[in-house]
Amino acid sequence: MGSLWITGIGPGGPAYMTPQAVEAITRADTLCGYTVYIELVRKALGDRLRKNLTILTTPMRQELERCRLAMEAAAAGSDVAMVCGGDAGIYGMAGPLLAMADDYPDVQIEIIPGLTAAVAGAAVLGAPLMNDFCVISLSDLMTPWQVIEKRLRAAAAGDFCICIYNPMSSRRREHLAKACRILMEEQSPDTPCGWVRNIGRPGQESRLLTLGMLAMEEVDMFTTVFIGNSRTRFRGPYMVTGRGYEDKAQD
Amino acid sequence: MGSLWITGIGPGGPAYMTPQAVEAITRADTLCGYTVYIELVRKALGDRLRKNLTILTTPMRQELERCRLAMEAAAAGSDVAMVCGGDAGIYGMAGPLLAMADDYPDVQIEIIPGLTAAVAGAAVLGAPLMNDFCVISLSDLMTPWQVIEKRLRAAAAGDFCICIYNPMSSRRREHLAKACRILMEEQSPDTPCGWVRNIGRPGQESRLLTLGMLAMEEVDMFTTVFIGNSRTRFRGPYMVTGRGYEDKAQD
Repeated sequence: MGSLWITGIGPGGPAYMTPQAVEAITRADTLCGYTVYIELVRKALGDRLRKNLTILTTPMRQELERCRLAMEAAAAGSDVAMVCGGDAGIYGMAGPLLAMADDYPDVQIEIIPGLTAAVAGAAVLGAPLMNDFCVISLSDLMTPWQVIEKRLRAAAAGDFCICIYNPMSSRRREHLAKACRILMEEQSPDTPCGWVRNIGRPGQESRLLTLGMLAMEEVDMFTTVFIGNSRTRFRGPYMVTGRGYEDKAQD
Repeated sequence: MGSLWITGIGPGGPAYMTPQAVEAITRADTLCGYTVYIELVRKALGDRLRKNLTILTTPMRQELERCRLAMEAAAAGSDVAMVCGGDAGIYGMAGPLLAMADDYPDVQIEIIPGLTAAVAGAAVLGAPLMNDFCVISLSDLMTPWQVIEKRLRAAAAGDFCICIYNPMSSRRREHLAKACRILMEEQSPDTPCGWVRNIGRPGQESRLLTLGMLAMEEVDMFTTVFIGNSRTRFRGPYMVTGRGYEDKAQD
């Protein structure tokens, strides 16, 4: 009977990987995950990985198949690290793995959290998520677009700051523009926004811009987008959402 | 001219602290932050901290004063780490510090993200935040209660999973119950929920319970609360929100 460590590696660079994540990955005899995350781990940890490591991977979009492979390997006695980009839970593999855990009662499961793009990307742009916020994925592979639209409207109605995952892909070029137009029914086109691409990895890029400009922006699937609320301001090279200390200080 | 590293240390234990955070804190000649975070850092890093370290701290609720002290020290040439529990940005000190950065153009500022309680606590309970979610603080010290209430209603209307920070304190014993009653106007009282106390620290505790039960629960300010959405289920010892892979597999 083996272990299954569902492991969030953060954005990918070693500076962001927690000791807990490094321990799981370096103890594992089997790594499972998207090829791109396995490569990030190889680059970050190199010689510290075990020799004769077994790599289990499947093509994109075969997540359930990959989860099944990982569980079967752990049930057969391997120590498996399922490598997730960012966090293990947030749009990660913890959900589908735990949903099939009943079938593998002998596998020891541990979930190891990691820095998700909302947290790591916010630090690049300043402090966009200083107050209550929402995280919304614009991918309609798993969630119908009408549900995504309902959530965007709810987020705007609640004056939440918003972090957007999967803002655009080659197959869904128009999603970010549609989302911005929905938000602009409630929010000013001057609302401070920003995006970060390849967070913490070579080629990291970022940009601050208004919501109106964001509606015309071309980004890609490696980009995380931040949309301010009524309290967000540009301050020098940063976007910063007010937390309220400043108001209190004037009381 | 010195540096100011606004540093998220995660929940506090060394297993959760990123190498980036450890580097900032061990390079700093001055640490600034709540006493409780400074103590966590001392326990986690001990001998790795610099000798003759200067500690700058102020009583609770004097956040702006503490930020000003940190900036002044960096402007005078110190290398200062502002130590934040969880993340540097999410309800952390990055916002008020960046808001005063204009006054200190020579200070080199870097924001170092950390594992916030939404991410670290979710990993304890299973996968409650597997899909779109909101983070809401129930503290009305900085945000008027009517804004908090508006956000709770918006989160329920959008069928978001919700992570609640500051659910209760001795001064605000009724906030969590009020929040649950607001959510139950939209959501079933059987909605799976959970809480985690002292995440990743000695004395960590957690509990799974329904939204109806949560409305009668006593928690404290060291507790983070998770409320599921319509797709969240109890599965053995976990709460898990459906991501959609399972439905897709049946298409």
